[in-house]
Amino acid sequence: MFITLEGPEGSGKTTAIKYAVSELKKRGYEIVETREPGGTSISEQIRNVILDKENKAMDPRTEALLYAASRRQHLVEKIWPALKEGKIVICDRYLDSSLAYQGVGRGIGTKNILNANLFATEDTWPDLTILFDIDPTVGMERIAANSNREVNRLDLEEMEFHKKVREAFLKLAKKYKKRYVVIDASKPLEEVEKEVLDIILKRL
Amino acid sequence: MFITLEGPEGSGKTTAIKYAVSELKKRGYEIVETREPGGTSISEQIRNVILDKENKAMDPRTEALLYAASRRQHLVEKIWPALKEGKIVICDRYLDSSLAYQGVGRGIGTKNILNANLFATEDTWPDLTILFDIDPTVGMERIAANSNREVNRLDLEEMEFHKKVREAFLKLAKKYKKRYVVIDASKPLEEVEKEVLDIILKRL
Repeated sequence: MFITLEGPEGSGKTTAIKYAVSELKKRGYEIVETREPGGTSISEQIRNVILDKENKAMDPRTEALLYAASRRQHLVEKIWPALKEGKIVICDRYLDSSLAYQGVGRGIGTKNILNANLFATEDTWPDLTILFDIDPTVGMERIAANSNREVNRLDLEEMEFHKKVREAFLKLAKKYKKRYVVIDASKPLEEVEKEVLDIILKRL
Repeated sequence: MFITLEGPEGSGKTTAIKYAVSELKKRGYEIVETREPGGTSISEQIRNVILDKENKAMDPRTEALLYAASRRQHLVEKIWPALKEGKIVICDRYLDSSLAYQGVGRGIGTKNILNANLFATEDTWPDLTILFDIDPTVGMERIAANSNREVNRLDLEEMEFHKKVREAFLKLAKKYKKRYVVIDASKPLEEVEKEVLDIILKRL
């Protein structure tokens, strides 16, 4: 089973999944936890080109193609082999992040991003996508609380971007109803943790 | 005007174009000669990932996406600005090479390669594509003659690949009749040079 986690930074998805993974392992399930670039050397090299601060001239579509290339290699080297062995793969962000952040946030268009990514994924969709939905203002306050820094002007400017991305994710959840489960990530962590575990157990 | 040169190594396209460029410059045309990755830093970095001999695990579709990403950046930073300034851009290999080598040669399918590349090029097609057509056996003999090495077993095994690629280019020339001109590159270099210049002058 292929599970993906989506939602903004500060939504608690990384923390919440830890509990579910440890509970699933206790029940004897073999879990592969991963996130792009997934520790594969080629994907890491591609990611380095994307993240290099010197590469200010990078066009948004170049970036999108590099993400798709990195995703492809991650699938080929890590995700597909694990799924073939019957393991549960839990991937922190996947295709939907590209659709929301690059398709909508950066304005390239979800259809365009989907086309480029279908070439990469050859129609490999998650069986289950858990969306950690949270108001970006609340998410940002959480990040600020954790890092002991105040919310600044730039954060507020970016708020519009994050609001667009949130709407995009909620739209994706409607479009892909069957695989999506939306969690209210503003609830206390313990509740969210249990909800995530329940959702996964139901699907197994 | 956007001109691309296509055809295998050993077809003499790089040598033949030199004469045309120098004649065009004499006539006052501003020419930008380029080839992917085109000297743009980001495209070079991407190319380094593609060509790194350590990256043996690279999947053909990852490679195709990286070529598309490099092409995109080359367009954005170099080709589009030059075309906007009214210059003649002559590019040694472009999209059609991906269609022939990766689409047909590597068996990914031209439609698939085209889809991924249309995302990169946003429908930027050459105004003129000159195909240097040559029997791969002849082309290989030329390379061998230049490098003083004999044609080996591996070369012959690769012959099937190069034959497929040749057929693919000829098919593309039929499909995109308006922009394609096919040259018989087995003719003496002086004839080919003059033919290339004539073809370009006619289109200007």
